[in-house]
Amino acid sequence: MDPRDASSEDGSAPAAITQSVRFDAAGLIPAIAQQHDTGEVLMMAWMNRAALEETIATGWVAYWSRSRQALWRKGERSGQRQRLVELRLDCDGDTLLLHVEQTGVACHTGRRSCFYRALRNGALVEIAAPLIATEQLYREG
Amino acid sequence: MDPRDASSEDGSAPAAITQSVRFDAAGLIPAIAQQHDTGEVLMMAWMNRAALEETIATGWVAYWSRSRQALWRKGERSGQRQRLVELRLDCDGDTLLLHVEQTGVACHTGRRSCFYRALRNGALVEIAAPLIATEQLYREG
Repeated sequence: MDPRDASSEDGSAPAAITQSVRFDAAGLIPAIAQQHDTGEVLMMAWMNRAALEETIATGWVAYWSRSRQALWRKGERSGQRQRLVELRLDCDGDTLLLHVEQTGVACHTGRRSCFYRALRNGALVEIAAPLIATEQLYREG
Repeated sequence: MDPRDASSEDGSAPAAITQSVRFDAAGLIPAIAQQHDTGEVLMMAWMNRAALEETIATGWVAYWSRSRQALWRKGERSGQRQRLVELRLDCDGDTLLLHVEQTGVACHTGRRSCFYRALRNGALVEIAAPLIATEQLYREG
């Protein structure tokens, strides 16, 4: 499905933001998720218009999965959801910053943040361990 | 110039990170700049391999300007530079998080952060004022 065709049908999203947001040629905009109180940057993913509208309407963060080409309601399978606290837009209107309340962990590896590798002394080292086993995150039933 | 052709010639960048980074089809990777001590997300821009290698080699952040199609040494004109404190890579290897020491302001509007608009009560409102006038930021010699 072309993400540009995935807009919600009722057009109920606030006009102010949907008019100011500049989606790229693929109909997407990068969205940075930051834990609202600690300031920790948790992840970066992409939204199309439908994901943005749903996030604003429901208060729960949804992205557009480029690999699955589908709406991705964060935590739908794992339970590790993101409640939207505040949505911010940058000067060019082409990047979103989401202040969120993250349930559990943001990363599919079971780590709190996806940015768990750091360049130190010329080597890429892991600076955070998984808090939850991936089998536990994505177990069936 | 095609950003994929802009790689440095000496190949001196640490192999660990350049091998792990996944640039997109245009040869670019999004890079989030975060003030290292306060946690404030300052901006998001793009790097090509040359910008990444220069950033690591010099300790001063350089991006790839998509609008100007040129290497963009942050603060080269305005003096509002970013010193790299730590470079992090996400789980998929397709987004960078830069912990930086920001001199002055990150935004070309004179604001500390580019994310100065927030959605509140359905309206996009400015939540930060410029700290420096743009004429002062970009005045000629």
